Amino acid sequence: MVYTRNDSPTGFQRTLINPEEFNYIDLIESKLIEALKDSRGIIRKICYHILRAGGKRVRPLLVCHSGMLFGEASEELFQAAVSVELIHMASLIHDDIIDETEFRRNQPTAQALWGVQHAVLGGDYLFAKAFRILADQKLVEPLEVMAHTVQTMCQGEIEQDSDQFQPLTDFDRYYSRITQKTASLIEASCRVGALVCQAPPDAVETIAQFGLHLGLAYQIIDDILDFCGDEIYMGKPKFTDLTKGNLTLPILLLLERSSEYEWLKEKLQERPFDQTLLPIIENAIRQSGVLKEAYRITVNHLDIARQNLRQCPNSPERRFLEELTDKLQARAN
Amino acid sequence: MVYTRNDSPTGFQRTLINPEEFNYIDLIESKLIEALKDSRGIIRKICYHILRAGGKRVRPLLVCHSGMLFGEASEELFQAAVSVELIHMASLIHDDIIDETEFRRNQPTAQALWGVQHAVLGGDYLFAKAFRILADQKLVEPLEVMAHTVQTMCQGEIEQDSDQFQPLTDFDRYYSRITQKTASLIEASCRVGALVCQAPPDAVETIAQFGLHLGLAYQIIDDILDFCGDEIYMGKPKFTDLTKGNLTLPILLLLERSSEYEWLKEKLQERPFDQTLLPIIENAIRQSGVLKEAYRITVNHLDIARQNLRQCPNSPERRFLEELTDKLQARAN
Repeated sequence: MVYTRNDSPTGFQRTLINPEEFNYIDLIESKLIEALKDSRGIIRKICYHILRAGGKRVRPLLVCHSGMLFGEASEELFQAAVSVELIHMASLIHDDIIDETEFRRNQPTAQALWGVQHAVLGGDYLFAKAFRILADQKLVEPLEVMAHTVQTMCQGEIEQDSDQFQPLTDFDRYYSRITQKTASLIEASCRVGALVCQAPPDAVETIAQFGLHLGLAYQIIDDILDFCGDEIYMGKPKFTDLTKGNLTLPILLLLERSSEYEWLKEKLQERPFDQTLLPIIENAIRQSGVLKEAYRITVNHLDIARQNLRQCPNSPERRFLEELTDKLQARAN
Repeated sequence: MVYTRNDSPTGFQRTLINPEEFNYIDLIESKLIEALKDSRGIIRKICYHILRAGGKRVRPLLVCHSGMLFGEASEELFQAAVSVELIHMASLIHDDIIDETEFRRNQPTAQALWGVQHAVLGGDYLFAKAFRILADQKLVEPLEVMAHTVQTMCQGEIEQDSDQFQPLTDFDRYYSRITQKTASLIEASCRVGALVCQAPPDAVETIAQFGLHLGLAYQIIDDILDFCGDEIYMGKPKFTDLTKGNLTLPILLLLERSSEYEWLKEKLQERPFDQTLLPIIENAIRQSGVLKEAYRITVNHLDIARQNLRQCPNSPERRFLEELTDKLQARAN
């Protein structure tokens, strides 16, 4: 069975995944539906809305394949994968409140459809469900990892907020933000999978490092695509981050590398964002070659991810993760 | 050491608790502060704001004393108590967003001070911290109970929302709402304490029933005091629930018991609440004797709570819980 965008239950274009992996996606999808079936009323509507909005289910796939590098597939492993995706879904719902986002993946967000109040509860419900699944499965160490990761993601959101309209040329701050906001959950997905399959401690750290660098690359590519991506594919307009004052790697590189744009630093601190700057910035970004440099940084992270993978047992699961890494790289090019 | 309102670190008037119990309150207080010390930035401010806003710490005291009915005090038990209070704090922060509350306990709420966005994150952080503490202590069954309870509380909030301005004379719906919104967490507090101290399954159910009925009484008293309470003591104006369209036991009894107020049913469905109704309702409530009837219902729940307590081992802890039950009853009279 090969899904296309239209006949997939989640509207996801499944070209990223090999045909032989479809069973895992389908399994995760059906277990996600199962997990949410005891919700009621508006909470149920919110849960199924975010579920149907799709997404690539990268995190649960990472849980499964990171686990199966070291052990057998099991119900525990699939439930851990479901739990990680529910935490991702909860954080998307709450992030959309925080960023006042009306559309995500070409769909209206929960807060746009049901209001902030209900969206808060929908997110809380999903967080609680995720922790409950891990507790039901007696997955204590994964639970510690996930609870810690949710705290980290909250701190990352706060840092992003306080960095808004700050054209910092200190890249540590950018890295701290994307590590907490995005890479921490991808790292946690790999760590949780390995923990469920009782990988040795060294191996857990190795696959977690793979996840961390994959996650950093994932976010930097997202930040690159905010400047040059296809709006329909992205599901959001270009320059969304920039106009919200989220200054990301390409613009930080531009400001650092060229004294010519000193004047821009001051303009970027003005709220709200001055829309007349867009063609100037677009042109500067294109001429300066900073997107290529950001791409090189991405490739560097993906190479570190690959080095970590090579220390893991050679297996179909490793090949799946290598392929995922290659496809992510291709996405940015 | 006897605290008064002014010299207490949390601003709580500690007359509810016997002098010999002060150590537990102080211990819980210091462990709450300890639990939040790794928070940063605005999240730290929100956490300490809600911590300093006080509260009677009834839930962590219930965890400790329900546990110590069946076993020894331990670090695990205190951490479970801290975790329950953090979940309560998180739910207060999110409830204040949902109900658009500007003041609680005479203090501005987190959302009033830092905005909805930061309040969402502050609540998420506290939920995650609570689950992390339970996971760190390997308290798997308490974790399942608490995750389930958070889901229940979310559903309760949604029911309250959809019942707004609905003068239902079906009391099941009112009971369902207050069970989910309030009593479930108080029940869970007792259940978790007993579980941590490895009480036998029957005993866990008995103390959980005590908690459930204590929690129901607690909420009904709150609903009574919305009509006749002292505003300074309550920390919020009278008729707050009524004017928000949260129709509670006294008004539902009034509508059910007297056909004279048939006209009121329609008026109560109008949004926003018609303030000119207040003196009429206040008078009707006083003359009809429904507050006395609501009080009798409260006492009935407290009596069921006491019957459950009597099945537990006779001990200083049982006497503490009996006294707590008596003081709650005195509050409503």
